[in-house]
Amino acid sequence: PFTPPSPNLIPFPRSPRTPWDPLPPSGRPQPHFSPPRPVQKAELVRLSQTLLHVPALHWVVVEDAAAPSALVGGVLAASGVSFTHLSAETPPDLRGGPGAPSWLFPRGAEQRNRALRWLRDTRRRDEPGVVYFADDDNTYSLRLFEEMRSTRGVSVWPVGLVGGLRLERPLVSGGRVVGFHTGWRPERPFPLDMAGFAVGLRLLLAHPRARFDPRAERGFLESSFLGGLVTPAQLEPRADNCTQVLVWHTRTEKPKLRQEEQLQRQGRGSDPNIEV
Amino acid sequence: PFTPPSPNLIPFPRSPRTPWDPLPPSGRPQPHFSPPRPVQKAELVRLSQTLLHVPALHWVVVEDAAAPSALVGGVLAASGVSFTHLSAETPPDLRGGPGAPSWLFPRGAEQRNRALRWLRDTRRRDEPGVVYFADDDNTYSLRLFEEMRSTRGVSVWPVGLVGGLRLERPLVSGGRVVGFHTGWRPERPFPLDMAGFAVGLRLLLAHPRARFDPRAERGFLESSFLGGLVTPAQLEPRADNCTQVLVWHTRTEKPKLRQEEQLQRQGRGSDPNIEV
Repeated sequence: PFTPPSPNLIPFPRSPRTPWDPLPPSGRPQPHFSPPRPVQKAELVRLSQTLLHVPALHWVVVEDAAAPSALVGGVLAASGVSFTHLSAETPPDLRGGPGAPSWLFPRGAEQRNRALRWLRDTRRRDEPGVVYFADDDNTYSLRLFEEMRSTRGVSVWPVGLVGGLRLERPLVSGGRVVGFHTGWRPERPFPLDMAGFAVGLRLLLAHPRARFDPRAERGFLESSFLGGLVTPAQLEPRADNCTQVLVWHTRTEKPKLRQEEQLQRQGRGSDPNIEV
Repeated sequence: PFTPPSPNLIPFPRSPRTPWDPLPPSGRPQPHFSPPRPVQKAELVRLSQTLLHVPALHWVVVEDAAAPSALVGGVLAASGVSFTHLSAETPPDLRGGPGAPSWLFPRGAEQRNRALRWLRDTRRRDEPGVVYFADDDNTYSLRLFEEMRSTRGVSVWPVGLVGGLRLERPLVSGGRVVGFHTGWRPERPFPLDMAGFAVGLRLLLAHPRARFDPRAERGFLESSFLGGLVTPAQLEPRADNCTQVLVWHTRTEKPKLRQEEQLQRQGRGSDPNIEV
């Protein structure tokens, strides 16, 4: 049986505004017709059920909001997972304007940096642990968490269905990372997806200035962080020398809510008091 | 603590052909550029991690294929969930032609009927149990399985993000179902999504001819089955009189694999020996 040598610390960044806030300041429920992310609760419930299987895990959830929301807090409290619920709002100058493409600024940089600050504020310098930056709609095999547990510096593995490819992965020879299979800008210092690496807590705490650059060029957010910690040659391959896919970059479809809008116009919309 | 009175039996229908069969008859891996469902393994892994939390559950997986595939069998065997792996291919005359719309025939009817046959072939008439028709990309709260466990005949509850609405649900008064909140064809006998009901095994076995009609009109597949078991007035409301959303009709985006096609043309595609 697997014995965890150390706690995992998982900052979890992406959570824009709460759809259908159950009780706004007026005290009356206010249905929003086009909420930013109607699948937010479903994704968190599903991810929490995966994390609930992982021994010695602590889930750090950082919402992109001025304050933690009741919806997310409710899911976390009911999940059975050990958690810390924080928030960090992306400043307006790093959001891009209304017409700007979504990739103009990397997403989740402020939230991941808030999680790093929490780790530096609360952990002892010699505390064991592994930090993984999970996303709410990816799919994680439970084996991934076993693989990352032995991380000393920065461990790496393949990611499925990412970057327009079946999989991206580090290429390994003689137990060392010697290159990367990627479909896009292979000259990046670390052509790795956020889901493809974990960091030892002690290494992280030994580099107090390592952080995600919210102004990093597209595709360079991971490199901006990892470059402050290791060189590519120091990466530690996992998952059978990076030949097993244990995490998939899945995304949830944005649901169409056309009938809801029609019924709302007729005053017969879904009960706004029921949280979805 | 929750004590399960009976096993759940969960036929689980949707699983078209395996993408990237690892070893075709020629013995050489043959990458397919546009597999029917590249997210199939990820969805099964994720769902298995939810089901692994549910006590006394048995998972019946029926693939839409001539025979059970190695990919699905591998996920099931590794999952830790008690399972039965079957297959039933949708006959050509119930598939619709190449240009036909996907909703011309209901999906998963043959596979659910195969699961019903398995139940009738293997279960004693007086065996306790609850049958739920799960789909591979929906999101299920663990509380849903507790709610359905007390099913005698047919139990019902809300489903989130379905039918173009925030939620569909039965309307309850005095503990009985008196109507339905739905955005589409409310005159259907049972305007319920497949995710919104469970059936007591004894009731099912007492009605040996109840089945899904593969030629049912769009939206009437659930009614074709439930109409052979109960009347709407006999439905048993769960989830706080149908005021809690414990299942969400989520769907996974079909990933774009453009870079894969480009690299494949250059002979540098992702390793076809790595299962995704």
